[in-house]
Amino acid sequence: MLLDLGAPPDVSEVSSLLLVLAAMLGLAKLLGDLCERVGQAAVIGELLAGVLLGPSVFRLVDPHASILEAFSEIGVVILLFQIGLETDLRKMLKVGSAAFAVAMVGVLVPFSLGYAASRALGLPPLADLVLGATLTATSVGITARVLSDLGRLQDPESQVVLGAAVIDDVIGLIILAVVSDVVAGGEVTMGSVVRNTLTAFGFIIAAVLVGGRLVPPVVRLLARYGKPASLPVMALTLAFIVAVLADQLGSAMIIGAFTAGLLFAPTPQAHQIQEGVVRVGYFFVPLFFVHVGALVDARAFADPRVLLVGGILIACAVVGKVVAGWAPFWWKGRKLVIGVGMIPRGEVGLIFATAGVTKGVLDDKLFAACAMMVMATTFLAPILLKQLLSRREGAPPQDEPGSAELVSRV
Amino acid sequence: MLLDLGAPPDVSEVSSLLLVLAAMLGLAKLLGDLCERVGQAAVIGELLAGVLLGPSVFRLVDPHASILEAFSEIGVVILLFQIGLETDLRKMLKVGSAAFAVAMVGVLVPFSLGYAASRALGLPPLADLVLGATLTATSVGITARVLSDLGRLQDPESQVVLGAAVIDDVIGLIILAVVSDVVAGGEVTMGSVVRNTLTAFGFIIAAVLVGGRLVPPVVRLLARYGKPASLPVMALTLAFIVAVLADQLGSAMIIGAFTAGLLFAPTPQAHQIQEGVVRVGYFFVPLFFVHVGALVDARAFADPRVLLVGGILIACAVVGKVVAGWAPFWWKGRKLVIGVGMIPRGEVGLIFATAGVTKGVLDDKLFAACAMMVMATTFLAPILLKQLLSRREGAPPQDEPGSAELVSRV
Repeated sequence: MLLDLGAPPDVSEVSSLLLVLAAMLGLAKLLGDLCERVGQAAVIGELLAGVLLGPSVFRLVDPHASILEAFSEIGVVILLFQIGLETDLRKMLKVGSAAFAVAMVGVLVPFSLGYAASRALGLPPLADLVLGATLTATSVGITARVLSDLGRLQDPESQVVLGAAVIDDVIGLIILAVVSDVVAGGEVTMGSVVRNTLTAFGFIIAAVLVGGRLVPPVVRLLARYGKPASLPVMALTLAFIVAVLADQLGSAMIIGAFTAGLLFAPTPQAHQIQEGVVRVGYFFVPLFFVHVGALVDARAFADPRVLLVGGILIACAVVGKVVAGWAPFWWKGRKLVIGVGMIPRGEVGLIFATAGVTKGVLDDKLFAACAMMVMATTFLAPILLKQLLSRREGAPPQDEPGSAELVSRV
Repeated sequence: MLLDLGAPPDVSEVSSLLLVLAAMLGLAKLLGDLCERVGQAAVIGELLAGVLLGPSVFRLVDPHASILEAFSEIGVVILLFQIGLETDLRKMLKVGSAAFAVAMVGVLVPFSLGYAASRALGLPPLADLVLGATLTATSVGITARVLSDLGRLQDPESQVVLGAAVIDDVIGLIILAVVSDVVAGGEVTMGSVVRNTLTAFGFIIAAVLVGGRLVPPVVRLLARYGKPASLPVMALTLAFIVAVLADQLGSAMIIGAFTAGLLFAPTPQAHQIQEGVVRVGYFFVPLFFVHVGALVDARAFADPRVLLVGGILIACAVVGKVVAGWAPFWWKGRKLVIGVGMIPRGEVGLIFATAGVTKGVLDDKLFAACAMMVMATTFLAPILLKQLLSRREGAPPQDEPGSAELVSRV
């Protein structure tokens, strides 16, 4: 801690960690603020910072270093907790059937398109399943961040997108389980699929039912007992526990964190909690987006075959999700906003593709094509969303006074 | 990130990390707030949380896990940056000669007492040097935190204590270098001691001279260019870089972080930066104190010989530093406050003792005695300081409205 005599490795590790974190945070904020200046979402700048710091250019950030993965994971857990805190469960349930329709079509169509494209291109067997599965993902983190930055989280379209993205994540858990079984040569029984499905959705329902009764008195107790400054950290602590619980029960950490946010949202202390959590998030959340950016090795894109397959996957990815926006035909609202909101694959898509590589189904070129699709959709969605949402009458963005003016400048 | 199929070790690592962090933060805040309720410093509760979670009781926190060391280190870096931000360099230089006298006497007397005690007890050769060196340490982190919690950072006594503690840390770097050389059988030349000394003090002086010109325009630029919310994180980024620079140049990270705080303190944006950094600190700083608590294995204290040597070391530790309060005989102020403020050895003392174990000079029993001394001084100082400082006329604590009332209740 204090000295570096006789070169103890820990100190040098910590000091290089601090340098890497400083580079990640510094470049993320610089490019993020720059993007806002030119009328783009800050998240684009943060992703770009990751691409620059990652293996593609400066090679300063090793995205597979477990400590950076940990910081990134804490970032996305805090982000989803924040988003949950801003979400009104009743409002979301009102658009529940629309969200469900979007999620289902947004899984089926991209999967079918990816499967068909893989067959048409004559790719190796089983790649069709993995590519299809990769196309089904939705990165709730990216979309939620953009909507939050634009001050549009409370729009009905945003509620549909968020609901659909969460359902999509849950479906994603099931698909990956099934596809991994098939790829491993195992047998997929109806029973196992049903069990997976019930676990995944059961967690949210159980958490909302049980937590809905438990959380308000606990928060009241904490607020009365502790210092006001302690409350956000205590709430974050509980969010971590719910996230781990979700993970252990076969759901995902980000689903748990989002659910925890939903539970705290109706309490009178929600605003106070949110204010503190957002400040901690200013540190951790950009680390997540930089990490996602660093996961992409842009050097592989030079290969023409990668460009071809990647281009086709991008087309399938965009078309498949945009179509899903029209799935709830009975629902009145801006369907294009919903479809575009579902486009980004982000880290979830990369996890699917990585699983494909680990199982030996995707080779390096096919992985690069997937990464290209992930990167394109992740960068495209915030740009399109910002265009679509700022074209309408301008609800003022929540974050800071300056950006309404910046938006209008575009 | 999303899935745990085929048991990827990273996810399970991240989820157990989140659980451990939740336990550390949750218990730290619970016990910290409890301590404040009964009129004690919150840091006592956080240290106690560490002792409970560490190897002594629940064994949930392994203080030697490198990722927890990293979180702890980030915590103390943020804390010292915060303290630096609240420090007026000119005010501190005004009491510079007093601080220097306190630091020198506070190194010489405890070292001599420890050396003599070791000789008198007939401890193994070289142990006298290491025990003496361990007694010279001062934990600027513990003292600064207590003074900050009590809202007394601006008192002249606090300025002397902080100045002396920082000088002490710098002297500590030199002593450890020298003692390690002697223990390793190496020769200590006057030249190497002088070089170490110049490096250690040179860093602060150079940083203040160069940084004093560089920082204000950089901060002005960042404040004009970026979003207001980005500024604290950008400042923290720069603090990380200065901390690593200090470490690389042979000084210590916490010295670098404190110096960075000094540099930002006179800028017009200092308050805005501090507000954001304090919120991030609510997350990281308790992790540092819990980690320090977890470094102590209280089970070893059961041995009567450990108790005897530990008791003698505690006496040397307290007497040696309290005496130092009277070193600046020309200075008018509460000398007992200064002496007591210098008592806590905290993590710095443990680093010295750990180096002694690594070099084979201290056995397990002697290390346990040192740990006992560290723990006793670390717990004692906040309790005594709180007593001493709340006895006088009550300057309102800075942190939250409730605690003035809590103090008066004692």
